[in-house]
Amino acid sequence: MSDPRWTVYLAGEIHSDWRQRIAAGVEAADLPLRLTGPVTDHAASDDCGVMALGPEAQAFWKDHKGAKVNAIRTRTLIRRADVVVARFGEKYRQWNAAFDAGYAVAIGKPLITLHPEALDHALKEVDGAAQATAREPEQVVEVLKYVLTP
Amino acid sequence: MSDPRWTVYLAGEIHSDWRQRIAAGVEAADLPLRLTGPVTDHAASDDCGVMALGPEAQAFWKDHKGAKVNAIRTRTLIRRADVVVARFGEKYRQWNAAFDAGYAVAIGKPLITLHPEALDHALKEVDGAAQATAREPEQVVEVLKYVLTP
Amino acid sequence: MSDPRWTVYLAGEIHSDWRQRIAAGVEAADLPLRLTGPVTDHAASDDCGVMALGPEAQAFWKDHKGAKVNAIRTRTLIRRADVVVARFGEKYRQWNAAFDAGYAVAIGKPLITLHPEALDHALKEVDGAAQATAREPEQVVEVLKYVLTP
Amino acid sequence: MSDPRWTVYLAGEIHSDWRQRIAAGVEAADLPLRLTGPVTDHAASDDCGVMALGPEAQAFWKDHKGAKVNAIRTRTLIRRADVVVARFGEKYRQWNAAFDAGYAVAIGKPLITLHPEALDHALKEVDGAAQATAREPEQVVEVLKYVLTP
Amino acid sequence: MSDPRWTVYLAGEIHSDWRQRIAAGVEAADLPLRLTGPVTDHAASDDCGVMALGPEAQAFWKDHKGAKVNAIRTRTLIRRADVVVARFGEKYRQWNAAFDAGYAVAIGKPLITLHPEALDHALKEVDGAAQATAREPEQVVEVLKYVLTP
Amino acid sequence: MSDPRWTVYLAGEIHSDWRQRIAAGVEAADLPLRLTGPVTDHAASDDCGVMALGPEAQAFWKDHKGAKVNAIRTRTLIRRADVVVARFGEKYRQWNAAFDAGYAVAIGKPLITLHPEALDHALKEVDGAAQATAREPEQVVEVLKYVLTP
Amino acid sequence: MSDPRWTVYLAGEIHSDWRQRIAAGVEAADLPLRLTGPVTDHAASDDCGVMALGPEAQAFWKDHKGAKVNAIRTRTLIRRADVVVARFGEKYRQWNAAFDAGYAVAIGKPLITLHPEALDHALKEVDGAAQATAREPEQVVEVLKYVLTP
Amino acid sequence: MSDPRWTVYLAGEIHSDWRQRIAAGVEAADLPLRLTGPVTDHAASDDCGVMALGPEAQAFWKDHKGAKVNAIRTRTLIRRADVVVARFGEKYRQWNAAFDAGYAVAIGKPLITLHPEALDHALKEVDGAAQATAREPEQVVEVLKYVLTP
Repeated sequence: MSDPRWTVYLAGEIHSDWRQRIAAGVEAADLPLRLTGPVTDHAASDDCGVMALGPEAQAFWKDHKGAKVNAIRTRTLIRRADVVVARFGEKYRQWNAAFDAGYAVAIGKPLITLHPEALDHALKEVDGAAQATAREPEQVVEVLKYVLTP
Repeated sequence: MSDPRWTVYLAGEIHSDWRQRIAAGVEAADLPLRLTGPVTDHAASDDCGVMALGPEAQAFWKDHKGAKVNAIRTRTLIRRADVVVARFGEKYRQWNAAFDAGYAVAIGKPLITLHPEALDHALKEVDGAAQATAREPEQVVEVLKYVLTP
Repeated sequence: MSDPRWTVYLAGEIHSDWRQRIAAGVEAADLPLRLTGPVTDHAASDDCGVMALGPEAQAFWKDHKGAKVNAIRTRTLIRRADVVVARFGEKYRQWNAAFDAGYAVAIGKPLITLHPEALDHALKEVDGAAQATAREPEQVVEVLKYVLTP
Repeated sequence: MSDPRWTVYLAGEIHSDWRQRIAAGVEAADLPLRLTGPVTDHAASDDCGVMALGPEAQAFWKDHKGAKVNAIRTRTLIRRADVVVARFGEKYRQWNAAFDAGYAVAIGKPLITLHPEALDHALKEVDGAAQATAREPEQVVEVLKYVLTP
Repeated sequence: MSDPRWTVYLAGEIHSDWRQRIAAGVEAADLPLRLTGPVTDHAASDDCGVMALGPEAQAFWKDHKGAKVNAIRTRTLIRRADVVVARFGEKYRQWNAAFDAGYAVAIGKPLITLHPEALDHALKEVDGAAQATAREPEQVVEVLKYVLTP
Repeated sequence: MSDPRWTVYLAGEIHSDWRQRIAAGVEAADLPLRLTGPVTDHAASDDCGVMALGPEAQAFWKDHKGAKVNAIRTRTLIRRADVVVARFGEKYRQWNAAFDAGYAVAIGKPLITLHPEALDHALKEVDGAAQATAREPEQVVEVLKYVLTP
Repeated sequence: MSDPRWTVYLAGEIHSDWRQRIAAGVEAADLPLRLTGPVTDHAASDDCGVMALGPEAQAFWKDHKGAKVNAIRTRTLIRRADVVVARFGEKYRQWNAAFDAGYAVAIGKPLITLHPEALDHALKEVDGAAQATAREPEQVVEVLKYVLTP
Repeated sequence: MSDPRWTVYLAGEIHSDWRQRIAAGVEAADLPLRLTGPVTDHAASDDCGVMALGPEAQAFWKDHKGAKVNAIRTRTLIRRADVVVARFGEKYRQWNAAFDAGYAVAIGKPLITLHPEALDHALKEVDGAAQATAREPEQVVEVLKYVLTP
């Protein structure tokens, strides 16, 4: 109850270094928070279902098994988080990041979106449900630093 | 309480005729349900914020005002729905459809996804949270027809 | 809000006439309630997933698709119900009836179990969570008649 | 809030060594989680009501008292769990495992089912609500190891 | 959703005419509300469990069966109510009225207590959780008339 | 469930004609919604506690009794509303309007604020939690008209 | 999350040594739980409102202030508890114990009642909502010992 | 779960020393609680949005960005709190304090209001929803000291 540390879940893009940049900023500022997120090893994430539970002949069911195993982690960590950050990049569709954002907002978690201006119009509904929209990971750190002012 | 009709919210893509095809099937089968969804007039949807509440100099805030007005409708109707259908097409990013899907799942609404096979891998997390994945609007009607068997 | 009718969901066994006997009793007593339940056509229930959404090569995934489509109906109707009755017979394992009972209790629905005395020990946890345990469908009608005393 | 350890509740069958095999795997992998479950001493579990609260003349009420005392433990631990595993074996009906599974799903806990292929059809509704279906306890450990990837 | 009528649940004492007096006042003022409450036929209420479900040798279990059947009605109607009135008289302990009041407050129902001044000290915790404390049934009607001002 | 009408609760200022202007706009556009709100007769609202339940010697308790009776109405209607509009004017402190706004947001109701630009800075936290900020009642009608597009 | 200790709230009677007897049993068995409860100093409890917040001329408001201050403690501790024990004795009406029991049950806390057989009929509704009914404090300890079996 | 410390959120006025006086009292009495609250550096609070996320041309959007960043902190801390204290002073409108109070009450947090008698009538609805109304910070400490009686 009275643990003053926060948990911040980092959802979305796994092909750039945005998580590392946030982690570096958090460490530099010595913020009392713990960062969580999905498994970011792309191959491990894609194969986790069949690796743990046996092979599938069809791509759909292989994906299905994997997605459901990943959801054990992601939804548990989102439910445990105080803040959810959702990162969208130019290259991928990242529907899972938007799904996580919708899930987080529905259960009352404050959402911070992180994306370039070029995606503003396409992400307007997600931004509209967010408490803040950042362009750079360092801005996310600034927000966290402020909201954790002692 | 004992109103036997259901409400089905149709989220996502607004540039194809999938809603009409579901509506036609529902009508043909005389299913006891009401279809709801977002405003599908693209221009009206984009401009609703500034039309109702005054102009904005910056695109970001114009979008923001519009997105938040649209959310009054979409989230209210999702909360009132018994089933949510989320449609994803090849052309657009439709992050709002994925956001709505996450929102719906988080508040316990059964989700049906509707998309071509080509999007299976990209949508695996959303499909993993769904009760059914359909390829054609007529399959959604079949599911609804079955679950509403008298 | 002030609709005085109740909805009663009848879960479990689909191979005997217990639902008909309850329906007959409800009609005879002209009780202000609506009875709901799963699709009781066994073949239709088993095949609903592949019939609506396409065939599956593997029995597990055929069952999976069907079970998830059925859950759209069953969980929606359980959530809408005022009372849930769960019937267990001697012949089948009816794990779905016990699952429905656990689901119903967790969301605060009063549960009535219906089963022969021979199953008492095996069902003690389910009975322990129930508001009433009946041996015959007519006893369920008696309970409903009493709780709906004008 | 930011305690990184998870709690995993192991529901169901108490006549085989599946809990020990999961515990051994968790220990071998040094996973940051705590395992919980029902009292697995069969006699103690059956008699707990009358042992603590006085004898009963009738089997039904003896069972009833015992089941309700056991539920103090099981439902509290399920509510505290991050993940629920439900094990079904060939020999017993284990309606309580299915009840626990339904209860867990209704309050948003990710469910992992564990059972032989022979029970697939009978358990399809429970599997349909689960995030993963395993055949062996070691597969459950693999899933937990993956979802707890640091 | 937009049904303007309210439902008011009348809990507690069944040995005086307070419910009739409230009903008369509601009718006289033509208030748009429906009154609900427990079964007030004392003998029927005491015996409902054994009448519907078979006799019990022990008074405790006879009472238990009856209380649980009554709770199907009372808790369902409390959950459906917009306002709960709890009446306490001098003669009986009416722990069930206090239990209902606690239940109602916990799920967010506005509570009105109704009792003579002599019970003020003994009922201070219940009154402390209430929105109003009335001395006479007619005062309850006055409160309802006011809150339902068109 | 499938009643297409909405309910809109109008909170705040009772000394200007803003409710009438919204009602006129709703009627002119024939919108499928019902408007609700607090009792707007100032004297009746101030005195309702002592009128219904007996006089109080101290102003604090007179106010207390009145405020709690009013809350039976206001919180019930806010919980039943689909949208809450909170109006702030220049003259009064209207802490109750801000309280209602916070209450509404916490239980997931979309909020529309209505106030002159001069109050923007003082109301920034309330506006920050709102889906729309209007300057004139007619703009609220425009928003409602849009979100209720057939 | 994974703190294995439980919290048990002891509600009701403050004029006998039942809390001490439970505490002694818990200590003797070295059970991993923390006992909480209301302030049991009768005079302090009656006067807490006026002592902290200033005198009141009328007994009703003195009680009211005290009851609401006490509720800050009691409801917070009940919400934090894993199990609630409610003790009823022969001498007092203890409506607050019944209120606490109803509150606890409504928010899903397992309830253990503790009272002599003579009160069985009067307490049947409260017992009907409980997981166990004990006659002696030592029986409550036995139940806790069992449910906390390592 | 069984952490005996409480968290108390101090909402409202940031221009007087009331928080320091409460903190001094808590320290003097060595109460097992942690005090939290908004960022009380007025300039930092006003500018946090644009400082972290970039400048805005319009005052409304500057305020909006800041208010939403502040809400990440305030609503998270209110949700984590056991008790919320809301302070109102004579000078400012403090609609945010009233908003926080409404938010807190809606999610079940006990509320203590703190304000001079001169504001009683204007704050009657907020006081009506509170568990206690104090005039001086030291009275709040007295209430906390009492409710935390070991």
